[in-house]
Amino acid sequence: MLGVDRIARAAALAASAGLDGLLIAPGPDLRYLTGYSPLSAAERLMVLVVRPGEEPVFVLPSFERGDAPDGLRYVEWVDGEDPYSAATKLLGAGRYAVSDATWALHVLGLQAAAADASLVSMSAGLPLLRAVKDADELARMARAGAAVDAAFGALLDVPFAGRTERDVGEELTGLLREHGHDSVDFIIVGSGPNGANPHHGVSDRVIAEGDMVVLDFGGFVAGYGSDTTRTVHVGEASDEHQRVHDVVRQAQQVGVEAVRPGVACQDVDRGVRAHIVAAGYGEYFTHRTGHGIGVETHEQPYIVEGSTQPLEPGMCFSIEPGIYLPRQFGVRIEDIVAVTDDGVRRLNESPRELLVVG
Amino acid sequence: MLGVDRIARAAALAASAGLDGLLIAPGPDLRYLTGYSPLSAAERLMVLVVRPGEEPVFVLPSFERGDAPDGLRYVEWVDGEDPYSAATKLLGAGRYAVSDATWALHVLGLQAAAADASLVSMSAGLPLLRAVKDADELARMARAGAAVDAAFGALLDVPFAGRTERDVGEELTGLLREHGHDSVDFIIVGSGPNGANPHHGVSDRVIAEGDMVVLDFGGFVAGYGSDTTRTVHVGEASDEHQRVHDVVRQAQQVGVEAVRPGVACQDVDRGVRAHIVAAGYGEYFTHRTGHGIGVETHEQPYIVEGSTQPLEPGMCFSIEPGIYLPRQFGVRIEDIVAVTDDGVRRLNESPRELLVVG
Repeated sequence: MLGVDRIARAAALAASAGLDGLLIAPGPDLRYLTGYSPLSAAERLMVLVVRPGEEPVFVLPSFERGDAPDGLRYVEWVDGEDPYSAATKLLGAGRYAVSDATWALHVLGLQAAAADASLVSMSAGLPLLRAVKDADELARMARAGAAVDAAFGALLDVPFAGRTERDVGEELTGLLREHGHDSVDFIIVGSGPNGANPHHGVSDRVIAEGDMVVLDFGGFVAGYGSDTTRTVHVGEASDEHQRVHDVVRQAQQVGVEAVRPGVACQDVDRGVRAHIVAAGYGEYFTHRTGHGIGVETHEQPYIVEGSTQPLEPGMCFSIEPGIYLPRQFGVRIEDIVAVTDDGVRRLNESPRELLVVG
Repeated sequence: MLGVDRIARAAALAASAGLDGLLIAPGPDLRYLTGYSPLSAAERLMVLVVRPGEEPVFVLPSFERGDAPDGLRYVEWVDGEDPYSAATKLLGAGRYAVSDATWALHVLGLQAAAADASLVSMSAGLPLLRAVKDADELARMARAGAAVDAAFGALLDVPFAGRTERDVGEELTGLLREHGHDSVDFIIVGSGPNGANPHHGVSDRVIAEGDMVVLDFGGFVAGYGSDTTRTVHVGEASDEHQRVHDVVRQAQQVGVEAVRPGVACQDVDRGVRAHIVAAGYGEYFTHRTGHGIGVETHEQPYIVEGSTQPLEPGMCFSIEPGIYLPRQFGVRIEDIVAVTDDGVRRLNESPRELLVVG
């Protein structure tokens, strides 16, 4: 079972980070460590307790036991019992990192039951739990990247003008599935002024000749995420549209070229941002440069001011600068990159120049 | 805007509960109070701060501002800034309830930034925030109940024997949509021994003559949840199958008849459980009797041992006893009920006797 190796590695990482243990919630951390995704985790406490030098223990509602993986020790509880004291019996005084997405209900329940245990988030206590991908994971990330590129290539042949963003988005969803995605995670089709909202989804706006269209989309292939953005133009671009696109494209290139082991995350962000500031658009680049990706679409490491985390070979993340001119248009270009032993490898290779669609 | 009334009501409830405020995360609480469901809430802090006697303030990433509802005061932050100190500037010393599903990342970030503020979960601090439905909500709950009953009625006409659980589940998904569901939340088709796992989903097991089949399914209609369970039999039932089904049906009836204002949640559970214990199956009823439902499928109040919460008119929850005989079969019957001024109203009216399917 894959999980046993990963759990042992996680315990060793926890010890190195000065932690007394990890409290792993259902979701990406649990899936990564055990392959297990409970159907119905929510208000009922389920937590995998990983401690250096101890057997891992899974605390869960007794009726979930049937679906849970073999090879772990279980502490079961039933409705009406207090699950928090069952879990905290496993914790001595010490410092424990909990999965970022653990429910507040459970964090506060655990804190109340274990006065001696201090909890920190996984991002604060053990940010590298899933950040460094092994060879198998890198192969899956590369497959996801190739699949999303293939979907984008096919999308270039479809008509844009006269169709709604929603309609193009549905076509893109179909293309992602057709090109190997097991699930689609998100679709952004931001045409004209909608492109100026970085987290626009789709709308009923009808795409018109002369529009910039931000296309940001991704999903999962064999358990690993894809995420890419290209900005296309309906018909020939104006000089301003072309200029803004050039600035973003160059900034994205600057970011990719800054990636190598040992560089701090914030230095990649600073390089990208400096390029956009120098071009006069600094105030319109309103978000961080990128986010890690793996079994989750957004995960560590974040490529953001304030993160002194050094890059390590095997880390995978996005480089996705954008310029957003309110009420006018937006441009964003995004590739996933993997840090190699001596530099960087792009996992997306769709053309980055401004492509014209019909 | 609907939200303003609900926010004012929430602030008053918070004051009555001795709270200094509420920290509302994206998800069901925020949707309930404002109608707003951010597309991409996750690792970036978004929180609506509701304090008695103060204007509500929404702390959010600046690029989400465009999608957020009007009529609130906003505190925006950008990537690279510390959102937790921005949020905790709004909090004095005091006790605040946070949405149950708030991420641990954010709970721990807020605790670290606001040493004087003590946080409790919404379930602990203000369990009735969404539990008592108003007339409009009750009408939506009734629509959801009628829609899910219509889907079940249509399902009785389809063949079961010789088809996989997955196949029947897909047909049921289609029927839910056909009968007015905007989305499908979950589907359980637990045939034969799979029915003995209360949280089984669907599998590739081929349903056969002689199988009990637990069918538990629901989704959303106009923003409110449906959730019902019926257990059917493929061909004529054996005496044992019929006997176990009778016990569950009677226990469910006992539970429904126990519901009226002022009764404690745990007393409904105790009545149901006593009936099953008396019939000799107590050890095989392995979960609580029910859960509240509304904008979320599982919410307060929970019908569980240990909950002394008195029922109030307008509360909606499931009554869903089950008997699970390991490696043999399971039976569960579930209706959503609404507490009325003097008793109870069932929102599901599909036949509860053991129906034979083909």
